[in-house]
Amino acid sequence: VSQPVPAKAGDPIQSIETPALIVELDALESNIAQMATLARGVALRPHAKSHKCPEIALRQIAAGAVGICCQKVSEAAAMVDGGVGDVFVSNQVVGAGKLERLVALAGRARVSVCVDDAGNVAEMDRLARSAAVKLDVLVEVDVGTPRCGVAPGAPTVALAKRVAESAALRFAGLHGYHGMAQHFRGVSERRVAIESAAGQLRATVAALEAAGLRAQIITGGGTGTFPFELASGIYNEIQPGSYVFMDADYDRNEWTEQPRFVQSLFVLTTVMSTAGPGRVVVDAGLKASSVDSGLPQIQNGGKLAYVNASDEHGLVLVPPDASAPRLGDSLRLIPGHCDPTVNLYDWLVAVRGDRVEAVWSITARGCGA
Amino acid sequence: VSQPVPAKAGDPIQSIETPALIVELDALESNIAQMATLARGVALRPHAKSHKCPEIALRQIAAGAVGICCQKVSEAAAMVDGGVGDVFVSNQVVGAGKLERLVALAGRARVSVCVDDAGNVAEMDRLARSAAVKLDVLVEVDVGTPRCGVAPGAPTVALAKRVAESAALRFAGLHGYHGMAQHFRGVSERRVAIESAAGQLRATVAALEAAGLRAQIITGGGTGTFPFELASGIYNEIQPGSYVFMDADYDRNEWTEQPRFVQSLFVLTTVMSTAGPGRVVVDAGLKASSVDSGLPQIQNGGKLAYVNASDEHGLVLVPPDASAPRLGDSLRLIPGHCDPTVNLYDWLVAVRGDRVEAVWSITARGCGA
Repeated sequence: VSQPVPAKAGDPIQSIETPALIVELDALESNIAQMATLARGVALRPHAKSHKCPEIALRQIAAGAVGICCQKVSEAAAMVDGGVGDVFVSNQVVGAGKLERLVALAGRARVSVCVDDAGNVAEMDRLARSAAVKLDVLVEVDVGTPRCGVAPGAPTVALAKRVAESAALRFAGLHGYHGMAQHFRGVSERRVAIESAAGQLRATVAALEAAGLRAQIITGGGTGTFPFELASGIYNEIQPGSYVFMDADYDRNEWTEQPRFVQSLFVLTTVMSTAGPGRVVVDAGLKASSVDSGLPQIQNGGKLAYVNASDEHGLVLVPPDASAPRLGDSLRLIPGHCDPTVNLYDWLVAVRGDRVEAVWSITARGCGA
Repeated sequence: VSQPVPAKAGDPIQSIETPALIVELDALESNIAQMATLARGVALRPHAKSHKCPEIALRQIAAGAVGICCQKVSEAAAMVDGGVGDVFVSNQVVGAGKLERLVALAGRARVSVCVDDAGNVAEMDRLARSAAVKLDVLVEVDVGTPRCGVAPGAPTVALAKRVAESAALRFAGLHGYHGMAQHFRGVSERRVAIESAAGQLRATVAALEAAGLRAQIITGGGTGTFPFELASGIYNEIQPGSYVFMDADYDRNEWTEQPRFVQSLFVLTTVMSTAGPGRVVVDAGLKASSVDSGLPQIQNGGKLAYVNASDEHGLVLVPPDASAPRLGDSLRLIPGHCDPTVNLYDWLVAVRGDRVEAVWSITARGCGA
């Protein structure tokens, strides 16, 4: 069960079967190198939920990353299968089935995980003991995004104690990721949000120390906010993911950093109908580019506008003063949101110049469990 | 490259690894039977873009469908591989690579296809001749949805002539699908739209006859509008897809038909965090349910509300007067839009009562090319 391979190494770009997910290698390599430089002084643990592709994870690690983050056990397993030796599941793992897979994975790689519930800690400890595995466990702290995580301060200390008292678990630190803040549009909004998160973590670290517990790792940060986690002095690990690709939604953020990460990810699409007036139709719709964070944008599209996505079609308006693409022409779309778009594809076509250099398997595509 | 199988036949529903796509077999079978009854007097050719699953296509054919529709050649190939003998690609197939795959498929099954461009007709004819294949070709008519298709009347007649004059192509009829009308909320809006489409097709059929051309097949209609295509007297084939599953967006349509199709498709999800106040977090987010047509709804959710989807999380608000689900509890989500949600999964878990009866492979998942 997998999509036909859309190209092979050495093919000209024109021969890629569309719609296809392509990555510009020059841009990808520049983004990977740039983040490795920016992250000096802290551990860099990029999030693999964005790319789901071991080929990219291994390049991040070769550039200095200490390991990767994943969100799901099956995603982590795909990464370990792909040669990654250190995975932090930056999420809760709930239920015996998933926990059993987690502890099995810990027999094959360095594995750490988040918790925000005492019952979950107890079950995790029991299953890790059965498997004779010792797991590194981080307590997730709610630093402002209403999602998972326990409140900072006393509730975090109480749960950290439960972890530290568990025979098969080791309390390794705190996960304080402010997901919502990644897309706050203004730089100052993002700064304020992360200064608040950092303040809560700082106080919590002090409370942990008062209780005799040491948080070795303080991790968080994404592509939208990592400069502020770096500046905080409290985070000693960052976990950005989208920076390898970027997307139209991140492009709507205000940025001050120079140089900027560059768009490396595109959906390659073909004009499949020019029959209607004032429009052309491309072969990439909802099943080719996720629209949760807005429609895809046409790269160098000029006056052309991608205005509607249906299941298998994208509607591109062509104003009277623009020249219309012809049937069979290719366009490159910048996805609205990179992560769920990547999750639609089995294959990532890596291109350089006008050639396909490699076709990478997105082995964790769809690994949601 | 595929997702781990989330369950096996005979398992209790509680043991399905989540998030998982499940289908209630009683509801699925009722929907399939009901449509077969309603479509009497015309050919029923259900659209497989909704389910992408040969197991369902074969059940539709066993209930009387003449074949299926697909949108893409790779999707059609997956269906032929799965045992389907008659596929109409209700879409344009543009470019030599895709056309070569189409004519190759026509050597293995009965294959028909749409056109809306004379150059495309010429290339299709050339490649079909090379492969010594004769293809049935329908001209797509723009009946009101601004997408593919040539204008009704003279432009359709001109293109039909080109088809009829092509040595390796046979002019088989007209495809007049009004996609946009499927989700017009009011019954009368949908009726008016399809009466207009039918009127345009009727006039076009007359113009074809005046030109000595016979449109054997007049096909169109979806889950939202097929009663009006049936009532028109001009359509002799309907191609609904979503009726097998239904979704939250179709539920927002006004309906008058009795009995109604019933929701058979769900995303099974698990409560993975209860740490925050007034909320729980489930393990199904953007990568588990497409939100292009709105967020998923919780089946029998009472006062619980799924209010936000991030990549791997769904945020469920729990008002003070509602009882909160516990960590590890299961919820069933009704997807906002069934087609792109199905396209996220490799496996469809078919359940009856409290047991898994089968796990079906969604073999055309991701087949976009």
